[in-house]
Amino acid sequence: MSASVSPLAPKSYPEMPLVRGVRMATAAAGIKYKGRTDVLLMVFDKPAAVAGVFTKSKCPSAPVDFCRSNLSHGVARAVVVNSGNANAFTGIKGKAATALTAKSASEAVGCGENEVYLASTGVIGEPLDATKFAGVLGDMNKTATGDFWQEAAKAIMTTDTYPKVATRTAKIGGVKVTINGIAKGAGMIAPDMATMLSFVVTDADISSSVLQSMLSAGVEPSFNSMTVDSDTSTSDTLMLFATGAASADGQKQIADANDPALASFREALNALLKDLAIQVARDGEGATKMLEITVTGAESDAAAKTIALSIANSPLVKTAAAGEDANWGRIVMAVGKAGEAADRDKLAIWFGDIRVAVNGERDPGYSEEAASAVMKGQDIPVKVELGLGSGKATVWTCDLTKEYVAINGDYRS
Amino acid sequence: MSASVSPLAPKSYPEMPLVRGVRMATAAAGIKYKGRTDVLLMVFDKPAAVAGVFTKSKCPSAPVDFCRSNLSHGVARAVVVNSGNANAFTGIKGKAATALTAKSASEAVGCGENEVYLASTGVIGEPLDATKFAGVLGDMNKTATGDFWQEAAKAIMTTDTYPKVATRTAKIGGVKVTINGIAKGAGMIAPDMATMLSFVVTDADISSSVLQSMLSAGVEPSFNSMTVDSDTSTSDTLMLFATGAASADGQKQIADANDPALASFREALNALLKDLAIQVARDGEGATKMLEITVTGAESDAAAKTIALSIANSPLVKTAAAGEDANWGRIVMAVGKAGEAADRDKLAIWFGDIRVAVNGERDPGYSEEAASAVMKGQDIPVKVELGLGSGKATVWTCDLTKEYVAINGDYRS
Repeated sequence: MSASVSPLAPKSYPEMPLVRGVRMATAAAGIKYKGRTDVLLMVFDKPAAVAGVFTKSKCPSAPVDFCRSNLSHGVARAVVVNSGNANAFTGIKGKAATALTAKSASEAVGCGENEVYLASTGVIGEPLDATKFAGVLGDMNKTATGDFWQEAAKAIMTTDTYPKVATRTAKIGGVKVTINGIAKGAGMIAPDMATMLSFVVTDADISSSVLQSMLSAGVEPSFNSMTVDSDTSTSDTLMLFATGAASADGQKQIADANDPALASFREALNALLKDLAIQVARDGEGATKMLEITVTGAESDAAAKTIALSIANSPLVKTAAAGEDANWGRIVMAVGKAGEAADRDKLAIWFGDIRVAVNGERDPGYSEEAASAVMKGQDIPVKVELGLGSGKATVWTCDLTKEYVAINGDYRS
Repeated sequence: MSASVSPLAPKSYPEMPLVRGVRMATAAAGIKYKGRTDVLLMVFDKPAAVAGVFTKSKCPSAPVDFCRSNLSHGVARAVVVNSGNANAFTGIKGKAATALTAKSASEAVGCGENEVYLASTGVIGEPLDATKFAGVLGDMNKTATGDFWQEAAKAIMTTDTYPKVATRTAKIGGVKVTINGIAKGAGMIAPDMATMLSFVVTDADISSSVLQSMLSAGVEPSFNSMTVDSDTSTSDTLMLFATGAASADGQKQIADANDPALASFREALNALLKDLAIQVARDGEGATKMLEITVTGAESDAAAKTIALSIANSPLVKTAAAGEDANWGRIVMAVGKAGEAADRDKLAIWFGDIRVAVNGERDPGYSEEAASAVMKGQDIPVKVELGLGSGKATVWTCDLTKEYVAINGDYRS
């Protein structure tokens, strides 16, 4: 947790309503930090449907392995999340730690170990002392309450400067349902995935396979469209739980991903995922500016996204943003290196509403003053039109500052 | 040109011998800088064989287009290089500028415009005023001399903190030949290519097609194996010229790339290319440390190189190096995100001679003190053994410092 809050932090936080069927508690287990909570327990008193999307790293953490293996079971009763230690690259000790944590949680909550989900975030390569959970999970289950979203978001922070929460409502067959989510992540953030950890819970009654289908689709334009530093965590975890409590109001269970009754829910879920993803990007380590990069006119949507991410991950583009320098030449560079089709002489580039380049050269009406004015803002929209096709994509990133170097030059020590 | 010289600069420069058949001159044409030379003319009084390797950017600069188009002609009489303006993304003005420069050079030297090669480096997107060359090239041709390598290297610098020169000798059929090279580049440096500009000249008598074959192969383990910031210039140019002057000593022309008489020359050329490439990496903007990253045990050499570059380009690895932090967890992260086959539990990692991780976890004999001692050095060897196959690769990079952010946050203004 950083001493100062990002200048890009939300000005206010939403009131987080209850989501029936989930209770939460936090504790200070002393994993790494002192004087703050570092473990979160979520309890579903009735089995919840569950879906997950995880890091594509070839060296995933032990908790990611554990969750992937339980996911086929399709039911969740408990989630244990800790900050301070990622339990990643911890060899057989890592597997022992996840087994012990699951055992402690199953005893505390009274469920099967395959109904437990785990996530850890923090330092890689240090063994995690899972015995610390055994002493706290039982009490946490007793005190867990539904009105605890802000505290839950705080307990899972590492280098985050603010907790990330979001809420939406939707209707399924005329019945109102709620979706709440929390996320953490500030560095080592890149597709795929873009957040280290995020947990979303709804009281809707939706089957696990339908949840998975919506989550896998929803992650693309949200978490997988933002990047802080192009580095991909070994622990990235996004999970979606449905408690089904809305069935008490007459909501009929949705078991078909193509059910038209899902439209409102899908829209609300996608909006919530995007909300959380942008909150993570805005908390990028050392960030002072937020860049929204839109590429249009590409040969395909996939090509547009590759080019947009090439721009978003370019250290030269990101340092120029930090310096409030309208250096559109570096945008051209990043388009060129992406490897996707581009025609230099058809390119056009905008900062905000200011077109700075067109037809492969500086805009005839280019005004350094007008372009610089955009760069001085906190939010910088960048648009690139390739003039080749109809493919388009939008991604989000932050600037690269000396503070990023400072944070990451002595994070571990 | 930076005010202070990189701490990684060579302690001494080699005496650069003459290479018969090439003359050089520099001038201050006032392209951007004041009070320093910014244009280099190389003259081959007899037509030289020529080969080139250029940026893979989809938005190459006008001079790159120009060189590519002349290369099929296979003969060089003049090279004009300027610093301060890259003549990149300058639309039809860019093509007009290359045409005018080539015309001025052909008149000054007395050759065809298709025997001229051009390279420009500096700001992207600003029109280059090529009329400035017309006034200086004639005088430059008159004063050009063979003993001018250091001055040539200086004239092509931009944010470089030191000039880059290298020399080697070889024997072809018992006849001694010389190879001299210069390079520039410090930012926007990544495969492929890794230097913005490099020019290598030999007095050997070798055909253009054989030169091209050797250059295309030689660039892989040298310039294409080092990265400063993963950003690829629109102007990257590496050219190799053979004046053929050694034929006066009885060297028979080499026209077959498989000629065994080339062995010594090929070895010397590859050593020279690696020498120049490492000089460029050591002058990475803001660099205080040099990392040599070796990956072994990969499924293939290509996979090893992908993983090595993933490590070399990771901002988190590079900032840890800047902070002298033996953060091997970030090496695991970078291996995992590379997308190539890796087995977490077979990984081993060394900093220098200190094995910090083995069998997927921290080395049982891990000593923070010993690992930190390696990180305090100026040169940090990193080795990763994947334990899967026999593929291997070595790449070079530098650390990521606050100074890099400072240099690139206000480069243009």
